[in-house]
Amino acid sequence: MKKIKYGMIGGGIGAFIGDAHRRAARLCNDFELVGGVFDVDYERSKEFALQEDIALGRCYESVDLLIEKELQLAEDQRMKVVTIVTPNTLHFPFAKKLLNSGFHVICEKPMTITVEEAVELESLVIEKQLTFALTHTYTGYPMVRQMRDLISEGHIGIVQRVDAQYYQGWVNNIIHSSENRIGKFWKLDSRQTGISGCLGDIGVHAFNLAEYVTGKQVKEVLSDLNTLKEEIELDVDGTVLLRFGDNLKGVIRASQVCAGEENNLSIGVYGSKGSLTWSQENPNFLTLKTLTEPIRIYKPAHTYNGDFAERSHTMKAGHPEGYYEALANIYVGVRKSIKGEEINAGEYPTVHDGVRGMKFIHAVVNSHKTGNSWISINQ
Amino acid sequence: MKKIKYGMIGGGIGAFIGDAHRRAARLCNDFELVGGVFDVDYERSKEFALQEDIALGRCYESVDLLIEKELQLAEDQRMKVVTIVTPNTLHFPFAKKLLNSGFHVICEKPMTITVEEAVELESLVIEKQLTFALTHTYTGYPMVRQMRDLISEGHIGIVQRVDAQYYQGWVNNIIHSSENRIGKFWKLDSRQTGISGCLGDIGVHAFNLAEYVTGKQVKEVLSDLNTLKEEIELDVDGTVLLRFGDNLKGVIRASQVCAGEENNLSIGVYGSKGSLTWSQENPNFLTLKTLTEPIRIYKPAHTYNGDFAERSHTMKAGHPEGYYEALANIYVGVRKSIKGEEINAGEYPTVHDGVRGMKFIHAVVNSHKTGNSWISINQ
Amino acid sequence: MKKIKYGMIGGGIGAFIGDAHRRAARLCNDFELVGGVFDVDYERSKEFALQEDIALGRCYESVDLLIEKELQLAEDQRMKVVTIVTPNTLHFPFAKKLLNSGFHVICEKPMTITVEEAVELESLVIEKQLTFALTHTYTGYPMVRQMRDLISEGHIGIVQRVDAQYYQGWVNNIIHSSENRIGKFWKLDSRQTGISGCLGDIGVHAFNLAEYVTGKQVKEVLSDLNTLKEEIELDVDGTVLLRFGDNLKGVIRASQVCAGEENNLSIGVYGSKGSLTWSQENPNFLTLKTLTEPIRIYKPAHTYNGDFAERSHTMKAGHPEGYYEALANIYVGVRKSIKGEEINAGEYPTVHDGVRGMKFIHAVVNSHKTGNSWISINQ
Amino acid sequence: MKKIKYGMIGGGIGAFIGDAHRRAARLCNDFELVGGVFDVDYERSKEFALQEDIALGRCYESVDLLIEKELQLAEDQRMKVVTIVTPNTLHFPFAKKLLNSGFHVICEKPMTITVEEAVELESLVIEKQLTFALTHTYTGYPMVRQMRDLISEGHIGIVQRVDAQYYQGWVNNIIHSSENRIGKFWKLDSRQTGISGCLGDIGVHAFNLAEYVTGKQVKEVLSDLNTLKEEIELDVDGTVLLRFGDNLKGVIRASQVCAGEENNLSIGVYGSKGSLTWSQENPNFLTLKTLTEPIRIYKPAHTYNGDFAERSHTMKAGHPEGYYEALANIYVGVRKSIKGEEINAGEYPTVHDGVRGMKFIHAVVNSHKTGNSWISINQ
Repeated sequence: MKKIKYGMIGGGIGAFIGDAHRRAARLCNDFELVGGVFDVDYERSKEFALQEDIALGRCYESVDLLIEKELQLAEDQRMKVVTIVTPNTLHFPFAKKLLNSGFHVICEKPMTITVEEAVELESLVIEKQLTFALTHTYTGYPMVRQMRDLISEGHIGIVQRVDAQYYQGWVNNIIHSSENRIGKFWKLDSRQTGISGCLGDIGVHAFNLAEYVTGKQVKEVLSDLNTLKEEIELDVDGTVLLRFGDNLKGVIRASQVCAGEENNLSIGVYGSKGSLTWSQENPNFLTLKTLTEPIRIYKPAHTYNGDFAERSHTMKAGHPEGYYEALANIYVGVRKSIKGEEINAGEYPTVHDGVRGMKFIHAVVNSHKTGNSWISINQ
Repeated sequence: MKKIKYGMIGGGIGAFIGDAHRRAARLCNDFELVGGVFDVDYERSKEFALQEDIALGRCYESVDLLIEKELQLAEDQRMKVVTIVTPNTLHFPFAKKLLNSGFHVICEKPMTITVEEAVELESLVIEKQLTFALTHTYTGYPMVRQMRDLISEGHIGIVQRVDAQYYQGWVNNIIHSSENRIGKFWKLDSRQTGISGCLGDIGVHAFNLAEYVTGKQVKEVLSDLNTLKEEIELDVDGTVLLRFGDNLKGVIRASQVCAGEENNLSIGVYGSKGSLTWSQENPNFLTLKTLTEPIRIYKPAHTYNGDFAERSHTMKAGHPEGYYEALANIYVGVRKSIKGEEINAGEYPTVHDGVRGMKFIHAVVNSHKTGNSWISINQ
Repeated sequence: MKKIKYGMIGGGIGAFIGDAHRRAARLCNDFELVGGVFDVDYERSKEFALQEDIALGRCYESVDLLIEKELQLAEDQRMKVVTIVTPNTLHFPFAKKLLNSGFHVICEKPMTITVEEAVELESLVIEKQLTFALTHTYTGYPMVRQMRDLISEGHIGIVQRVDAQYYQGWVNNIIHSSENRIGKFWKLDSRQTGISGCLGDIGVHAFNLAEYVTGKQVKEVLSDLNTLKEEIELDVDGTVLLRFGDNLKGVIRASQVCAGEENNLSIGVYGSKGSLTWSQENPNFLTLKTLTEPIRIYKPAHTYNGDFAERSHTMKAGHPEGYYEALANIYVGVRKSIKGEEINAGEYPTVHDGVRGMKFIHAVVNSHKTGNSWISINQ
Repeated sequence: MKKIKYGMIGGGIGAFIGDAHRRAARLCNDFELVGGVFDVDYERSKEFALQEDIALGRCYESVDLLIEKELQLAEDQRMKVVTIVTPNTLHFPFAKKLLNSGFHVICEKPMTITVEEAVELESLVIEKQLTFALTHTYTGYPMVRQMRDLISEGHIGIVQRVDAQYYQGWVNNIIHSSENRIGKFWKLDSRQTGISGCLGDIGVHAFNLAEYVTGKQVKEVLSDLNTLKEEIELDVDGTVLLRFGDNLKGVIRASQVCAGEENNLSIGVYGSKGSLTWSQENPNFLTLKTLTEPIRIYKPAHTYNGDFAERSHTMKAGHPEGYYEALANIYVGVRKSIKGEEINAGEYPTVHDGVRGMKFIHAVVNSHKTGNSWISINQ
């Protein structure tokens, strides 16, 4: 099977998330990294290419050059898809250019800075009929997919409550450091990050997961955010009340000031017959509680799971998989989409998820600014 | 040591919580049940007395008779304290009578139906200089007390977020049953229960626990409650945003429609240096996460705990204690208070906690009714 | 219901296990402590009686006097059962005297020092048709009883392996202390403790639990014990291979030198269709793994449990019970036996369990001394 | 950085462990698969090569041809290392040929069938000064490496007990199936598997792990194995008593008939000051209990860990890694060894570990056959 040739924007020397994407692409073995713009500093970009055994001729000085030169290559030599792992503000312009030139795109989250940009990308993807994947990686975990299936098949009855939590603690090291690092940190600076800090960074993952597993859309949000200190511009913590309609309510709790928490993304969906809970730091266990039966713990690699979950775990039972494997599952979805293979709903997060996310972030900030009022997520 | 003679209002044959109180009283061995009004049905009340080896002469037809007759007894024979485990609406009138007649009172929660009643009881307790304990039992767990101590001693730094959750699932059996049981169930009937269902029943425990472990008072709440169906009068689920002032925020999540959840009261307090989490169904484990050290799990019966926690566990290390022992610890606090022994702050929940609770419940309902606005908890 | 009058030998001021027995007896409310010999020092014994509100006239100077005087009382005033919580070497002589005089007996473990004594007690109990309970308390936990029921009902198929572990760590404080405390510590002194240290103290609990939950008897053992240091007389650690016959094998691991372990009694029973595991420090959770279904966690207070487990938990679902409640369940069994009520097999550990235990201990020591050979447990 | 070219013997279409090796090799990105003998059936082997984009010219009909042809290639084109993932009986002859021809080898476990073969390979590796890695993959987990470091640095004091457990349940599906599959299954057939079933398959992993984390060597073993049924030739379950000398004892428990267990490899090392436990199915958590402090849970990606553990986890804190990442860490060790980079002791399992393993397996079987006697592991 021929591997899909892909490029990367960003992700050069020392980059954390770019490395994760490359590992995931190698894990699933469907992709081959052939070039990119790995760093704004061209010298460092080339250094990276050398280190990774990538032909220097395809290590470009800019995205424009990348597009121009790649389009000159024979179609079977050309990059088919480009992964964008740049700072947030560059996601939109690069994605737009690439889509306009016919490249499929894999984009890190947040998809854009504004809702308008998100909607524009959405139109473009539809128009161009290209694959666009947004790496809400957590939807790649087998047990998340099993959770989605169990809910859609009615195993917990009517969904009555949704709780999603995403707690981290690392911001404490910035905001409470003796040298005042607040002003210098890009994630707390709206010009580099957009209108939200914590909610935009991780709250949106929780939101995405909540809609993913329930198969339902949030209609309105009411938020109370926290910047903790006056000199902090963006939220570092917040709570968001959710209304899905039909008497389904819920809450998203997100924080980056919970000292000692690492990457505690957890979700609970509570129904009339049962409840499901899952936690990212122990991703191979999914808990189902019901009114009448002993608690059930689902694990990957069992025939009791649905097909989607089963195809998302490659190891034998009892051999744990983790974050890279989840991301690799997203890449598998992209491959299927690009190759026109049969694909499961939810096999990779789409541009529509990206639009939902941007609307969520803006509604959350809007709610907080307007005295914690209810804001429709479709505004 | 002479045991304190106590009486009981309610708690007769088949009563769940009355039985728990008696077990707790026996466990700590500081109390002796000498009489009471165990049932509105006097025959059943006497049947209970017989069964429990209680002198029939002290099994009274009414609270008024109990007061009258007990006061005629010599002081060392007389009940010193009376436990009230009646339906909610009777807590206030009985407590008031008993206090007015000089009896100490142990009262099940909710303390009263209205804030005004609560405030009246508070004045009465102060005026009469009597002991009044409200059984927010969960504050009796050793590891809850250790959590309180660790926070007050600064182990987690500045408190930045508080999350309390209380999830149960049993209401599903009532609201989704084929025979419509909604109208017949007292906990969903405002005339028997007061203005709130779930939040008044269990949300208030979460609120009490949040104030207990942090040592801080909630200033304002904003709530969104859920009755799920139109024909349900009272909330069966809800979320309450909290503001403590000084940039400390939090949230209480309470639900009785989380099918499969049993008695999942859990609390997390998140600070600038560390975070503490505790969960009632595994009460002998307290988790401390910090920015720089491995996760720590505290357990009872260790010298690394504070005195208060240590005195609250009587077994050796590794021998689990549970709910009855927690309630027994509340009774120990009452004994100390009645006997004038030295007592720890927080050794039993007081009438002031009861006032706080009633204010919380009313503010929560008020917020929900006024379009989810912020309501001061001191209104 | 009239409470059963009971006396206590040992268990006076500062005694740990005597206190636990009294709490358990009060918890179940079937017993009333009316007298005893609480201490070898009569003054301290009387001090204890005063403190506990026990009539001084029934605080006796010796067991002989207790027997003599109690027998002079009217039958309905007399102690019916006596709890023995003395040092190990006194269990046998006191139990024998009491049984011979017609008293039922509740005895702490180990039942005796020698197998011969154990067999003698067994004959006496049969002859006198009295109730004799040995407090292998761990069989009182509801989830242990549920485990027994699930196995006997075939839920795990053919039992193929049994593993029981009992780990503690406190002996390190004695054997590694700077002041040499080894020679001074009674549990390491054969004259006070018998022929085994750790295996006799806690290994026998694991053995009892293994036979209890499987309903099968160990036929042969092969042990390797460890005294760690030459100057230590008795085992502080050991492993015992088990053969039950019919190709069922297993192992008991017991240690008191596992620093940091508290009271880690855990058992796993592995079958052809499923496996069950339970751990004492989280006693309200029982795990069933099977070949084809998600893992199941059983908890008390559910209709999915058998009757025996259900009657052994008094609180509502989600309200944890612990060690005292387990011991109270043993006392309930004793009450039923004494009163001639219908009783479940396994409702309290009997004198036959005591004989099994003594045979186990002696076979284990014998195996170790004879170069780790197989020793029949019926020798 | 140039990738190391590697080949593979076995691991073709449908092969489980070959796929795992390739994923691990890709994950760490230090290796490039250039050819091999993927299947005994040459057609299927070529089909696999096509599917994996491997040049057909390097898909060989036999190992002999592979060696011959590869040696004809320029040194920088030639395979440097060959991974052997064939049935057990072929490990030795292929490894020997490859080593003799100057190839480094990565070999699946068990290394050989006999001790003599193992010793022969060991001599050969020493003589040829080649890298030979045996994939005891579990030593690649970061928290296993941290456990090793904590023990060697004295964090648990004197090691006093070692317990290793490896439980699986899949053999039940073979031995209890209605169609008698016992005789047809290669893992239960000595001609294909060697002298041991379960102990040779997984017990040896537990043994390797025990020696790895303690840094100590087992001196003697005494085993009791179980074949469950007469018609089963090889052990499917067993327990092995261990003596390390210096009063350190322990036990290995291994079984493949624990229905419902998946890949439950767990280890506990118990010392005079503390105890460490780790479990493969939750590999990112390492528990340290001590006599005086709260329980500690270590996780990867923290400065509190040693360098070795830290270099073995590539993701940020709270992002779980799993089995493939552990195997990738072994491949990283191989790369370092081949390239002559500085390498940690224990960075990959060596031919010496393989010799230890074979001696263990033979001693275990020998002990069982000689009436459960002690057998020196160096015999």
